[in-house]
Amino acid sequence: MFMRVDRLITDLPPPKKQDPNAAAALQELLGGKYGEMSTLGNYMFQSFNFRSKDKLRPFYSLVASITAEELAHVELVANGVAMLNNGPEKPGQDEGDGGDISKSPFEAMQDIRLASAFLSNGGGATPVNSNGVSWSNDCVTTTGNVLFDLLHNFHLECGARIHKMRVYETLSDPTGREVCGYLLVRGSVHAHSYALAIKKLTGVEIEKMLPTPNIPLAKIPECQKYLDEGSHRRLYTWSETDYAEIAGIWSNDEVALPDDPPGPLEVVEGMPDGGKIHQLAGVPSAFTPDYAPEEFYEIAAKLYKKSL
Amino acid sequence: MFMRVDRLITDLPPPKKQDPNAAAALQELLGGKYGEMSTLGNYMFQSFNFRSKDKLRPFYSLVASITAEELAHVELVANGVAMLNNGPEKPGQDEGDGGDISKSPFEAMQDIRLASAFLSNGGGATPVNSNGVSWSNDCVTTTGNVLFDLLHNFHLECGARIHKMRVYETLSDPTGREVCGYLLVRGSVHAHSYALAIKKLTGVEIEKMLPTPNIPLAKIPECQKYLDEGSHRRLYTWSETDYAEIAGIWSNDEVALPDDPPGPLEVVEGMPDGGKIHQLAGVPSAFTPDYAPEEFYEIAAKLYKKSL
Amino acid sequence: MFMRVDRLITDLPPPKKQDPNAAAALQELLGGKYGEMSTLGNYMFQSFNFRSKDKLRPFYSLVASITAEELAHVELVANGVAMLNNGPEKPGQDEGDGGDISKSPFEAMQDIRLASAFLSNGGGATPVNSNGVSWSNDCVTTTGNVLFDLLHNFHLECGARIHKMRVYETLSDPTGREVCGYLLVRGSVHAHSYALAIKKLTGVEIEKMLPTPNIPLAKIPECQKYLDEGSHRRLYTWSETDYAEIAGIWSNDEVALPDDPPGPLEVVEGMPDGGKIHQLAGVPSAFTPDYAPEEFYEIAAKLYKKSL
Amino acid sequence: MFMRVDRLITDLPPPKKQDPNAAAALQELLGGKYGEMSTLGNYMFQSFNFRSKDKLRPFYSLVASITAEELAHVELVANGVAMLNNGPEKPGQDEGDGGDISKSPFEAMQDIRLASAFLSNGGGATPVNSNGVSWSNDCVTTTGNVLFDLLHNFHLECGARIHKMRVYETLSDPTGREVCGYLLVRGSVHAHSYALAIKKLTGVEIEKMLPTPNIPLAKIPECQKYLDEGSHRRLYTWSETDYAEIAGIWSNDEVALPDDPPGPLEVVEGMPDGGKIHQLAGVPSAFTPDYAPEEFYEIAAKLYKKSL
Amino acid sequence: MFMRVDRLITDLPPPKKQDPNAAAALQELLGGKYGEMSTLGNYMFQSFNFRSKDKLRPFYSLVASITAEELAHVELVANGVAMLNNGPEKPGQDEGDGGDISKSPFEAMQDIRLASAFLSNGGGATPVNSNGVSWSNDCVTTTGNVLFDLLHNFHLECGARIHKMRVYETLSDPTGREVCGYLLVRGSVHAHSYALAIKKLTGVEIEKMLPTPNIPLAKIPECQKYLDEGSHRRLYTWSETDYAEIAGIWSNDEVALPDDPPGPLEVVEGMPDGGKIHQLAGVPSAFTPDYAPEEFYEIAAKLYKKSL
Amino acid sequence: MFMRVDRLITDLPPPKKQDPNAAAALQELLGGKYGEMSTLGNYMFQSFNFRSKDKLRPFYSLVASITAEELAHVELVANGVAMLNNGPEKPGQDEGDGGDISKSPFEAMQDIRLASAFLSNGGGATPVNSNGVSWSNDCVTTTGNVLFDLLHNFHLECGARIHKMRVYETLSDPTGREVCGYLLVRGSVHAHSYALAIKKLTGVEIEKMLPTPNIPLAKIPECQKYLDEGSHRRLYTWSETDYAEIAGIWSNDEVALPDDPPGPLEVVEGMPDGGKIHQLAGVPSAFTPDYAPEEFYEIAAKLYKKSL
Repeated sequence: MFMRVDRLITDLPPPKKQDPNAAAALQELLGGKYGEMSTLGNYMFQSFNFRSKDKLRPFYSLVASITAEELAHVELVANGVAMLNNGPEKPGQDEGDGGDISKSPFEAMQDIRLASAFLSNGGGATPVNSNGVSWSNDCVTTTGNVLFDLLHNFHLECGARIHKMRVYETLSDPTGREVCGYLLVRGSVHAHSYALAIKKLTGVEIEKMLPTPNIPLAKIPECQKYLDEGSHRRLYTWSETDYAEIAGIWSNDEVALPDDPPGPLEVVEGMPDGGKIHQLAGVPSAFTPDYAPEEFYEIAAKLYKKSL
Repeated sequence: MFMRVDRLITDLPPPKKQDPNAAAALQELLGGKYGEMSTLGNYMFQSFNFRSKDKLRPFYSLVASITAEELAHVELVANGVAMLNNGPEKPGQDEGDGGDISKSPFEAMQDIRLASAFLSNGGGATPVNSNGVSWSNDCVTTTGNVLFDLLHNFHLECGARIHKMRVYETLSDPTGREVCGYLLVRGSVHAHSYALAIKKLTGVEIEKMLPTPNIPLAKIPECQKYLDEGSHRRLYTWSETDYAEIAGIWSNDEVALPDDPPGPLEVVEGMPDGGKIHQLAGVPSAFTPDYAPEEFYEIAAKLYKKSL
Repeated sequence: MFMRVDRLITDLPPPKKQDPNAAAALQELLGGKYGEMSTLGNYMFQSFNFRSKDKLRPFYSLVASITAEELAHVELVANGVAMLNNGPEKPGQDEGDGGDISKSPFEAMQDIRLASAFLSNGGGATPVNSNGVSWSNDCVTTTGNVLFDLLHNFHLECGARIHKMRVYETLSDPTGREVCGYLLVRGSVHAHSYALAIKKLTGVEIEKMLPTPNIPLAKIPECQKYLDEGSHRRLYTWSETDYAEIAGIWSNDEVALPDDPPGPLEVVEGMPDGGKIHQLAGVPSAFTPDYAPEEFYEIAAKLYKKSL
Repeated sequence: MFMRVDRLITDLPPPKKQDPNAAAALQELLGGKYGEMSTLGNYMFQSFNFRSKDKLRPFYSLVASITAEELAHVELVANGVAMLNNGPEKPGQDEGDGGDISKSPFEAMQDIRLASAFLSNGGGATPVNSNGVSWSNDCVTTTGNVLFDLLHNFHLECGARIHKMRVYETLSDPTGREVCGYLLVRGSVHAHSYALAIKKLTGVEIEKMLPTPNIPLAKIPECQKYLDEGSHRRLYTWSETDYAEIAGIWSNDEVALPDDPPGPLEVVEGMPDGGKIHQLAGVPSAFTPDYAPEEFYEIAAKLYKKSL
Repeated sequence: MFMRVDRLITDLPPPKKQDPNAAAALQELLGGKYGEMSTLGNYMFQSFNFRSKDKLRPFYSLVASITAEELAHVELVANGVAMLNNGPEKPGQDEGDGGDISKSPFEAMQDIRLASAFLSNGGGATPVNSNGVSWSNDCVTTTGNVLFDLLHNFHLECGARIHKMRVYETLSDPTGREVCGYLLVRGSVHAHSYALAIKKLTGVEIEKMLPTPNIPLAKIPECQKYLDEGSHRRLYTWSETDYAEIAGIWSNDEVALPDDPPGPLEVVEGMPDGGKIHQLAGVPSAFTPDYAPEEFYEIAAKLYKKSL
Repeated sequence: MFMRVDRLITDLPPPKKQDPNAAAALQELLGGKYGEMSTLGNYMFQSFNFRSKDKLRPFYSLVASITAEELAHVELVANGVAMLNNGPEKPGQDEGDGGDISKSPFEAMQDIRLASAFLSNGGGATPVNSNGVSWSNDCVTTTGNVLFDLLHNFHLECGARIHKMRVYETLSDPTGREVCGYLLVRGSVHAHSYALAIKKLTGVEIEKMLPTPNIPLAKIPECQKYLDEGSHRRLYTWSETDYAEIAGIWSNDEVALPDDPPGPLEVVEGMPDGGKIHQLAGVPSAFTPDYAPEEFYEIAAKLYKKSL
């Protein structure tokens, strides 16, 4: 089971401009073969299908706990997509009614790369890649063979790193860049952790392939504060009660990757503090949350009071 | 963000026999259009994309908190699928090596309906329907229009109820029946809660359509203990800190549906106690967790000790 | 635009037994690449996209009018599928309520080839092939080049003939065999008509390739009565007012194919008389039309009276 | 069965300019999850699969007759797409041969959003959404449960309304705007009719949720003439002989929705007069209807004369 | 089995500019329904599945040998796509490291039509069409009926010709135009050869439909040198030892199509000389072949020496 | 470019019985995510898209030459599928006409798992997995990053090994078992070669993970003769002129994996001798190669003579 906390895994700066094509690029990190739906889908189903859990507890706990972080990554990218599609929010933009919609107010939306993101989703994120193609079961590997699934996961995180790098290189807006910067640090942790798991099982020092591609995180300004905090040395249990056995793999005997700030690896019980989720103020002329939402706001306000 | 707890949302009895076609039927509740991947995918992306969250807090919290329960539902069905594919576990079944595999030990797997579930997934669950077709973005609706998305969700839960009923009617094994029985009760709660949300916004007493289809839960023996506990009157926040505003919608002013045991509706902070996750002991001859897993078990045992 | 008539294009005998795998085989003729959704989809979009309609009127009318017949073919196969899934109807089978559903009344549905047809569709037809894979846009060719589109259509009808033959060879039940027998005759007419259109445009006597495969219709007992009626020499306008220009292509100067009963080709204004649509009586225990439908029947009866 | 009439459901003004991206936006209303292929596919298969037709005649007739109108809606959107891709027609544009094609005459087509619409379809419409993704069986719901299928249809029409509104807001060209304006009025009728059907069965006044989203049709100038004619109060039988029982649901006891011009609801036997279908004059340099079509025109003219 | 030769089927001029949208247009010829993946997939599986090979040897050999040429066509289009995505190569562009990637070096890639081609594939080609949709099994026809499969192939080649023509008309860059020019000539040969095969079997002079569309190759300047060489009269065996029986079909008794330079048809043992494969020099800032590839180059150089 | 040789990569014994479900299981090795279409598709597109080929020649040649072997693997599995669907061939089975087809001669085909394989493909192989789902672009990874693509390929071969093992365990017929036995040996070579390539680039001894899963080839009787021949130590160039640089990676300095018969690794110029391709004699009643094929055989015989 999963509990929910109403916070984002890191703070995202607001977008400087509405930028649907930047949002569309970010979609590759959401619904692409090497996107966060894939890391989530792979680890979630692998953890559900995991064989002989007790006998392989540290490995099971590794996959199970990282699953929870991937949910937060899906949330992070989805928020980034929606924020870039929405643009900087103006006070009161979701008030009043949508006014006269007969003057083609969204003509510009015809020319955005993924028009369906506006027409169907009102700027929201969905599990599709940057070409609008759906994520699918073809992106899920769960064989039940513990070593192979770990190898798959190691490869998946390396592939995800390339994709995050390239998406980052297309973005000038701070919102999307922060998404990439954060994910690059955390994805490196996951690649590293799967490498250590493989090393424990086989003796192969596969972590020496890291980073792939061979660019240090320090080259990405958006990664710096996370490196300074030591995020790259930290694996969370994402639980108050379980999964602490990951400390058998991600242990103090092991240290940070050579290119990153040095220090021992640490397991942290629980989760990061995270940041604030943005409002995503609606646009009545786009029927979000409605064409004339005031009455709904009033109803919600009353219900809110009643709930206190 | 989501925290994880290593428990299943309810206790599942072990299967009486290996039954891959029963597992394949359950897949409809996992990856079908009206399955749990769809309830999860819809509410998860709707909550990420939700507009003007503060002004519509009780409605946002409703969708956001139910998302967390849907994760547990996906987990429940996935466990049921894997358990039915695995069959009753024998002591020591995952010990030793897989022995001589040259005598067609899995010839029977040629004839199961979803052969790929064995060949590719070693009996694990994946996001496909009962015909083996992948779940996709076509199963996700997130328009950003608050009333419409709630209406969609109400319809989705009613559709899910029909599917659960029919899958239940195909199953004789207790594992799968328990999955359906539990989900029928909880799905009814979700349908009811979306109906109340719509009623608050529009005044339309749409909850009077429930249950659809018009069969009372009491007709399903596996639902009885959950009704006795009052599960049908209970909505969880699935959070220690957030989403309590759902009490504005699922409030004590409202009562259980007429066909169900009477009483006021209740919001419960947190989550249900849940049950134990099964081991899913591996089958070395199927390479789960490996062909000769003993060495891996020893490594894991050492790492486990180290983690204490 | 299209008007609807509440009749089936030919009379179907009731099934002798419930036979979901026969229904699944018929699905190949509905949602397969060479099935009726494809003939419909190709001709419908070609007719919508047809260029320079007036200057090419006989060719436009050919594609446009056959489109209407394909709708009736989709309807015919869909009815056949639903009838075979439903089985022979018993008086009163849709009365009363569904009773005790807790005894696995549909256990047999686990083992049918396309379980989703029961679980999701209650035995109804959908646009999927005999493996459960969705029909898609990949099955639609509409280039706007008049000669090529006609060539495509000629090939499509020949391919459809092979598929109908093979499905026919798998069926022992009269319902499905009648569907195939009828479609074989009418598909031959369409192949012939596209061949004549190509001949008019190019002089190539492509109709001499017919029939492909080279088995005469006379070998199929279910085709005999249609041949006796001269159905193989008849092209309908499927309109009261339009498309009579097809007589320029399917003209009395042309005669039946050599293997078929001889005679001149004829254009018939309008449509065939057709047959009766079956009731498809519901199964309350499968929630069709509902678990306890009596009240709905009463409401419907009152509304019906009111409508007179 | 379906008869065809060579007219469009309403008159479309010619486009002011060639606008492939506007056409691509319209595709969302054709092949998107909430587009006309979906309304057609859902109602068509529901009507084929309808259980206990006689006992539920008014409800069966409702779904069956609206199916026919959806065919006309698919035709309308497809015509709009093809017209916008083609642009304003010039006299003689489809005469002569295509001339020298070696000077990159269609270089601009590289940059249109859905390049395949030109490359593969010569500007024609196909069943894909605004991102080029195929419509599929995932967009079809047909459970055989009468109440649920009606609820699904009600939700589908509300969702379709949001999509039409948003597509409308992206369009400045009169062709596409007329498509949207017309469909908004007729879609409202369908939503209203499904709401009344549900009300008859359950007593729930679900029509009070209309319109969703909550913008009156009067705000759309293109809707005005249809409202003036009373189109919003009119349901067609789309048949000369059948489906008149819909008058039990769409009855004079019921009136127009509060935001629309007042008056009683009316059932009209048959279909609307409709408008003229455009020529879609070919472009020889794009090989529509051919590179050098004159000979084909002459052949067609002779065949036409022969057919009189 | 297939042997490989490290040459391209014809020489491609280098691109004049980086042109991702031109590359995206070329993708229609790679992964579209009428693209080279389809000709390859159809003939490859037809040749594997071919029935009674000895008794139908000339026909089997025709399909089998053309399969090999289609591999070279897939390679040609893929090279064209990658070259256009890469642009003109600068000396040393793949040396050094990728430098500072924090300044949005690939911002322009957000706006290219198929962003995933950069983000996921680093500019490489993949089996998708010009809208980014995957090639699939729906594009493969292999019925085992020899005449029908040949008819399908004839239609496929004619359709491919339309698509090549239209893609050609969108391209101004010499690389892509050469790809089209070459494929137009060779595709005509294949259409002609399937036509002759059908004629041998049925007597129908279907080759008289060629060329479809009815534009002579001579109108395409890029085709001229291939016509001059007589490529349009030449069918290769693509083998040193097999498939010479195609001379029974593509025989000296037959001559070039009327629009093309006259002369007898010839079978050539083996394959064309072909041209040079381009380097596709990497872009370290895009992580191709790596961010800092020098070390890899050195390793490769040593291994190369060792291999001599 | 690729030349073709009319031989199979190894000799397959004829099947002992017709076994469509065994054929369907083999399909997982053809069109599954870890099947031969995937190894082919990945290496083929990677070789087309390879960056800086000269500077990385041994690595380029490795991917390019293995591509050619994967074509032979696709051919091998496809032949196995078709042979198992066809069953043991009887003399004269493809002679005469198909006789009376009206007695449901293929009723058994209704119940085979992938009915479409008979209905659509006459028993032929297609690029779908064991559940009938199409292979797609989601199964292709080609990033252009040399190290990551090699890592992907290493993981792909390990995953393919699990799938081959499991398919093998379902098969009792010699045809399918031979396919698996051969592919297990050759897949091990490919996994080994990618491991060595990675080791050369990074120093990581990743080959020590082999075999994954950890069952020695010697446990598979069907592998024995290939091990005896030393096939596991042999990498082919699949070319008469190119790719010999793979000797830099697969060099005599390296030796066989510890579980396999010892000895140095060898590069062999060219390809293996291979075996005979089976006739796949047609079944006239299934319209393969035709309903009454004698006339076609006669025509073919004449054309064959003419070709000598």
